[in-house]
Amino acid sequence: MSDVLDLATDLIRRRSVTPQDAGCLPLIGERLTRMGFRVEHLLYGEVLNLWATHGANNAPGQGPLLAFLGHTDVVPSGPEESWNSPPFEPTIRDGHLYGRGAADMKGSVAAMVVALERFVTAHPGHPGRVGLLLTSDEEGPTNLDGVRRVVEYFHQIGECINWCVVGEPSAKERLGDLIRVGRRGSLSGTLAVHGVQGHVAYPEKALNPIHAFAPALTALTTEKWDAGNADFPPTSFQVSNIHSGTGANNVIPGSLKALINFRYSTASTADALRKRTEAILADNGVDYSLEWNLSGEAFLTPPGGHLREVVVSVCRDLCGVEPEQSTGGGTSDGRFIAPMGAEVIELGPVNATIHKVDECVAVKDLERLPDLYQAICECMLLK
Amino acid sequence: MSDVLDLATDLIRRRSVTPQDAGCLPLIGERLTRMGFRVEHLLYGEVLNLWATHGANNAPGQGPLLAFLGHTDVVPSGPEESWNSPPFEPTIRDGHLYGRGAADMKGSVAAMVVALERFVTAHPGHPGRVGLLLTSDEEGPTNLDGVRRVVEYFHQIGECINWCVVGEPSAKERLGDLIRVGRRGSLSGTLAVHGVQGHVAYPEKALNPIHAFAPALTALTTEKWDAGNADFPPTSFQVSNIHSGTGANNVIPGSLKALINFRYSTASTADALRKRTEAILADNGVDYSLEWNLSGEAFLTPPGGHLREVVVSVCRDLCGVEPEQSTGGGTSDGRFIAPMGAEVIELGPVNATIHKVDECVAVKDLERLPDLYQAICECMLLK
Repeated sequence: MSDVLDLATDLIRRRSVTPQDAGCLPLIGERLTRMGFRVEHLLYGEVLNLWATHGANNAPGQGPLLAFLGHTDVVPSGPEESWNSPPFEPTIRDGHLYGRGAADMKGSVAAMVVALERFVTAHPGHPGRVGLLLTSDEEGPTNLDGVRRVVEYFHQIGECINWCVVGEPSAKERLGDLIRVGRRGSLSGTLAVHGVQGHVAYPEKALNPIHAFAPALTALTTEKWDAGNADFPPTSFQVSNIHSGTGANNVIPGSLKALINFRYSTASTADALRKRTEAILADNGVDYSLEWNLSGEAFLTPPGGHLREVVVSVCRDLCGVEPEQSTGGGTSDGRFIAPMGAEVIELGPVNATIHKVDECVAVKDLERLPDLYQAICECMLLK
Repeated sequence: MSDVLDLATDLIRRRSVTPQDAGCLPLIGERLTRMGFRVEHLLYGEVLNLWATHGANNAPGQGPLLAFLGHTDVVPSGPEESWNSPPFEPTIRDGHLYGRGAADMKGSVAAMVVALERFVTAHPGHPGRVGLLLTSDEEGPTNLDGVRRVVEYFHQIGECINWCVVGEPSAKERLGDLIRVGRRGSLSGTLAVHGVQGHVAYPEKALNPIHAFAPALTALTTEKWDAGNADFPPTSFQVSNIHSGTGANNVIPGSLKALINFRYSTASTADALRKRTEAILADNGVDYSLEWNLSGEAFLTPPGGHLREVVVSVCRDLCGVEPEQSTGGGTSDGRFIAPMGAEVIELGPVNATIHKVDECVAVKDLERLPDLYQAICECMLLK
């Protein structure tokens, strides 16, 4: 078995369902310590994070710093009997490595570790610094104690990442065919519309919150929030949940609850979207309360960014494909790194099976990935 | 104890929560049989109904027939410890008889029985016929096996009610201050809006049923269905329940469910309301399915109706009050009788405590009620 396949297999065997790490990070920490990295284990709440750096002048804030970013936690497997081979028993079949996390993203994590080991072995006195930031709280609902907290720590110690490669599985059909150059922001709201409960036979004594909300709902769902821009599609608004009613058909309910979500481009800001939403509710006379949760600002590494150019050329040279440069999809931990001023690019294996049963990664892609990451190190720090 | 108070107490003591009768109807059946009534016990499903008639020529279809209508079932008591005296232990306190069903409507039922006994004792050879129709399925959700089924039986045997006095508690503050001369219709619908589930980050691959329904919801809730008429307020439309969403805020739901309800005047028909609702949904491009349930057509005993005039004058003469003649409130079993061509008027005790804890009826009202019902018999059949 190759070095990267060996490590990926070892990681998949550990049941590191969020926020469990199941020994993945200590294993990686030991390997990198042996290679001369300075390794910190950062425990926040029940979440373990790892920050490892290497360089001739390896102190916080010394740069330039190229960091790889990943996570060792995985989503639950679902019913294990639905899998063709057990999700936590890595199995090679038809040229693919099967197991929960094979693609998202223990394969990438193994490739990053191997690439960094090879890079510092080949260039022990390389200029600048390389780093690896790993968390076991990426797949959870809040990500409070993962990269978000690590970045707060970075601010305290004066650490600063200049370039960040995120290992999230980005490819559509073949390795290198798509890289992410940014992500939309995600802004959520929990809306309560206040009415007055009553009997349907006496509507004049009640205030139906479903009726009160209807014109505002129409206005919100037909609003053009922005037109997008060259890098992003237009901001989209979705009401993901709406609930009102007692179950009985002769009772006018007293309140309505809705969850709303914006996926927004850099053509808008979260603050502007909040204000416009509240103005639409007020203009339509809705008696409401609304709690906002900003889970990530939009970010973009614009065309011409050094890291973006390098990653594109590495895909072109090593994979023989011109990568699509996308800002699509959900959010990633890159949203916490970009506000430091870093260029953030995401490059990882094919994402077709992630979060599904029989998650897998092609063995040849997995074995190619360290070459890509090592080439990025060399292009960014040596040339 | 007076005869009516004695019988009301006996009935309240029986835990006849819908559809249980707990022996109420057999007790009444025996009493009326002893008085020369022809008594039928009609068992439909698990619901017992009673039909008792008295007259010189006491065969179905022989008229004129004045019938009293009531129910022996009651709504649940709720937590018994919330009551000042146990709900099924009738208790007299401060001039009121307390217990579940005291006002809705075991008090009226006892008064009807006593009034009929007194009437046939005083006028054994009275012209026409008097009747008493009781069910133990009025308070339930569907009323399928109560008066609805009895009326089907009436059609089979050729029975026909000309005038019907419903004992539902109609008074606001004092006995006789309000009678019901009709009821609005009630038309319900179960609406499903069909969408396509997806991830909020990819709205172009999904169809959000909340968004798809919003313009139709606004149109439905702002529509003027009719202006009402001299006897009824305008038809009202309520969405009583709306539910859509998986709970997660990153998933666009695949369907939406809503319950809708019309309370409609005689200015509209159920059929017209159905068609207009479906036209509004179609005009707004909603992909939907809709199941209708007509729980009762609107009915009205118009001004000048013989029974209506008699009940008004009885209230005026015996209670010293000019009764309000209303079509307000929910529905009643009168909706099943009116389509036979009967005049239907509702007269019963004060309804302030019905369905609540510490339900009660004033003892003096309870003891006056048989006089009112007996006077109605005499005015309708003897004059």
